[in-house]
Amino acid sequence: MLEGAWSERKPAMDMTGEEFRKYGYQVVDWIANYLDHVGELPVLSQLAPGSIKDMQPNHAPQHGESMEQVLADIDRVILPGVTHWNHPAFFAYFAISGSAPGILGEMFAAALNVNAMMWRTSPAATELEEVTVSWLRNLIGLPDEFGGVIYDTASISTLVAIAGAREAVPGLRVREEGLAAPQSAAKVAKAASDSAAPLTAPPRLRLYCSEQTHSSIDKAAITLGLGLAGVRKVPTDSEFRMEPAALQQAINEDRADGWLPFCVVATVGTTSTTSIDPIPAIADISERENLWLHVDAAYGGSAAVVPEMRWVLQGAERADSLVLNPHKWMFVPVDLSVLFCRRMDVLGRAFSLVPEYLSAPGADQVMNFMDYGPQLGRRFRAIKLWFVLRHYGAEGLAKRIRNHIHLAREFAGWVDTSEAFERMAPTPLSTVCFRARPRDLGEESSVYQKSPDQCEAYLDKLNETLMANVNQEGKCFLSHTKLNGKFALRLAIGNIRTARKHVEMVWDVLQTEADRLDGTIRPAHLSRH
Amino acid sequence: MLEGAWSERKPAMDMTGEEFRKYGYQVVDWIANYLDHVGELPVLSQLAPGSIKDMQPNHAPQHGESMEQVLADIDRVILPGVTHWNHPAFFAYFAISGSAPGILGEMFAAALNVNAMMWRTSPAATELEEVTVSWLRNLIGLPDEFGGVIYDTASISTLVAIAGAREAVPGLRVREEGLAAPQSAAKVAKAASDSAAPLTAPPRLRLYCSEQTHSSIDKAAITLGLGLAGVRKVPTDSEFRMEPAALQQAINEDRADGWLPFCVVATVGTTSTTSIDPIPAIADISERENLWLHVDAAYGGSAAVVPEMRWVLQGAERADSLVLNPHKWMFVPVDLSVLFCRRMDVLGRAFSLVPEYLSAPGADQVMNFMDYGPQLGRRFRAIKLWFVLRHYGAEGLAKRIRNHIHLAREFAGWVDTSEAFERMAPTPLSTVCFRARPRDLGEESSVYQKSPDQCEAYLDKLNETLMANVNQEGKCFLSHTKLNGKFALRLAIGNIRTARKHVEMVWDVLQTEADRLDGTIRPAHLSRH
Repeated sequence: MLEGAWSERKPAMDMTGEEFRKYGYQVVDWIANYLDHVGELPVLSQLAPGSIKDMQPNHAPQHGESMEQVLADIDRVILPGVTHWNHPAFFAYFAISGSAPGILGEMFAAALNVNAMMWRTSPAATELEEVTVSWLRNLIGLPDEFGGVIYDTASISTLVAIAGAREAVPGLRVREEGLAAPQSAAKVAKAASDSAAPLTAPPRLRLYCSEQTHSSIDKAAITLGLGLAGVRKVPTDSEFRMEPAALQQAINEDRADGWLPFCVVATVGTTSTTSIDPIPAIADISERENLWLHVDAAYGGSAAVVPEMRWVLQGAERADSLVLNPHKWMFVPVDLSVLFCRRMDVLGRAFSLVPEYLSAPGADQVMNFMDYGPQLGRRFRAIKLWFVLRHYGAEGLAKRIRNHIHLAREFAGWVDTSEAFERMAPTPLSTVCFRARPRDLGEESSVYQKSPDQCEAYLDKLNETLMANVNQEGKCFLSHTKLNGKFALRLAIGNIRTARKHVEMVWDVLQTEADRLDGTIRPAHLSRH
Repeated sequence: MLEGAWSERKPAMDMTGEEFRKYGYQVVDWIANYLDHVGELPVLSQLAPGSIKDMQPNHAPQHGESMEQVLADIDRVILPGVTHWNHPAFFAYFAISGSAPGILGEMFAAALNVNAMMWRTSPAATELEEVTVSWLRNLIGLPDEFGGVIYDTASISTLVAIAGAREAVPGLRVREEGLAAPQSAAKVAKAASDSAAPLTAPPRLRLYCSEQTHSSIDKAAITLGLGLAGVRKVPTDSEFRMEPAALQQAINEDRADGWLPFCVVATVGTTSTTSIDPIPAIADISERENLWLHVDAAYGGSAAVVPEMRWVLQGAERADSLVLNPHKWMFVPVDLSVLFCRRMDVLGRAFSLVPEYLSAPGADQVMNFMDYGPQLGRRFRAIKLWFVLRHYGAEGLAKRIRNHIHLAREFAGWVDTSEAFERMAPTPLSTVCFRARPRDLGEESSVYQKSPDQCEAYLDKLNETLMANVNQEGKCFLSHTKLNGKFALRLAIGNIRTARKHVEMVWDVLQTEADRLDGTIRPAHLSRH
């Protein structure tokens, strides 16, 4: 039935070590060259959709290809289609880094290829996860009561945190019964349509976060069966920070309306402006109202590694959980997100499931990380974090992060003193929100006073086009957001190789192009003359 | 406020390319040596719990350490704590492979460090994902109607599939309203306790899978808010395959009882025995009952790459979704799981959320994989799959997988003809379930006839001890399961470097140790004499 087996021959089942060495060296050479010269490539890929697909056959090759052929296609097929997140002038979204020690760590993770689901399936992976998470907790000044676990993304860390909050609601039994009415209640409901028997429908859960919160909170609510209706967005102040009074009011209204408030998510470094929610006041409310407090510090938490920036996490020591992504602003290649939690037992209650084929003697004496999340399979992610923390050290990390903050403040200063740009939000961390705004369209100008709506529409168009053109040119890459309905550019500094010259360059490019554009596309009726 | 910034100096922000080359070569050398000699290391780590942690300081170093220091700790700290999943005598759980081309692919993923959330954030990553998923679909013979997306683990693929099934239930609006009674219904409920007003409680969803299904189905049900009660386990036949008649009966009972059946999960290669559920019969039922059919082929699906094994996916072409993990039995380093789905629009409906800061012109013209799952951040996973598919080719993959199946059948044959062992389940793929059973404790023996329960208890103990001792010895690593309440050993063949000699070795080791043990620990009253 099986075609001629080849188990008897001495088959070349995989490369020999010698072959691997040969190609491994070639890949290392490629990467070394890439790290030195990525800054010369266009940041945003300039390819048209479908270009890569068109270069590939419809089927996997029937016969294996030589590694030479595969490696040659890195430059031919892959490189033109890469948007270079590892480029020092990548300023979009949140800038990240595939740092050299991080890449070396990933090489070991791939070669060892362990599954860190249980302690015994790789003690080194499990214990290094405990060690690095503990180091990181110390670095950002969280108290020792916080346990921690590494996931792939903040999306999953946050989902797990909210699942913990859900599990912690007294009397609900979500793990066993889910969120819909228990079957018995459904039967009662049937009866209720005949008689006046009372119904015990489960209460509907609601969580609170600000209007500026990351979309992963909404996604987690959808996934967890709370629905978008289960998330109430709390208004923010003029600096895009959650208003504690508005949070309290929302909770009061919802309780009166039959909702069951169970969780609040505060953010340290929101995605649009990197605003920092007032955690102490939010912690007061969540303690009083008995809500699980989750802090989304995926980006901003790294700033707490800088001693004089530690204040960004003030109040977070009172949280139930906190997420920080070393793959964002701590120079670790994607993916690696850390969830800190002071109630690890609750996460275990929510997720632990040990079938016979995974049972092991003494398993209750050791940490088995599979018990704390939705995923059974777990890469050896801790090793790249270990490489980065050791090679840079606490001081080296702080130096680099401090430098990014400093560069962002310098850029913000340039914007503030410019006559052609204005800032759109405070700059507490390393991301600047701003827009081009010619001085003669300023708030006090007669043109603006006469037709503010038309001016705003033009400023939106000017900035959208400015961003598109600058990104198309390829020297740098910025992204945008909308703030109070206005189109705002974002300059996010976070790549390990970003130096002052890159920030100067983007400022030059923006000034030149904004000036050119304004002279080209401004409608006549918005002109001073 | 910020301590002296260093942006003006020319800082060594990261290694130079030259430094990276130096350490990169060292790591490549280490890996080459590891791949050649991993077979000489003990498979299961022999460390005591806490050993790695004890070797590490309580805090991250204040000052950065040299890469020499970090790399020296790979052998000193990490290696003794590794359970070698990349060892040719790793036969536990499902054996996997960090193959050479896969490792090389991971190196590029780490260095490019793109986030494949949207097409524009890396066209190459997005299109290579489309290409490799399409190649894989062709390789296993699924029809072109299936779209696909790469996730980290089967746990997430399955969670997404069930979320799709949940979203597809007509009239539920899970995305918007969640699974609990809408607020309006809660109000009605309040009213109902006063009057006889009817209540519109949402129906409770239930999904079906066999008793042998992987624990990730239960975890997904917990996560998605269905609860463990939302999963009904269907009995299996004598070969551990779901009984279609029992499935039909369960659905009938549940409908009568007020449940809303919405999904059935069939498995190709269950975790304990690799049994294959009868998909054609299950597809008949799910079509008739309007259930979403998800096929868990995470392990077994790879067998379909072997032309004469394609039958394992017979009927799967009628499924709504199917998961296959190339990081299991297709030589790709963890993590990489592919979800195929013929209703990608439903997944998009369930998960798509595009905040302003992620909006992009023309985004609706291209594939943005972030729209199809809970995670926003996505590694460039496709590149390692591309390396593996190209370097081995369809034939090379089939050859290697066929060889594993052949070896498993050989081993099963040895068990079947042995007087000291017996098989515990059929061996359709590359995993053998068996146990030591001295001939004089056979079913027909007088000892067994006299006291079957005591014999079974002894056989459990014999096999549990046998496994512990063999694993402790370190030459090979097996895991176990329970079948009909009996302790069964599992030999799972799947590592790319596993050759006949490794399978012969484990058979020798098992025979010798079982014989020695039986002579040592058998209670006197179970003796023949």
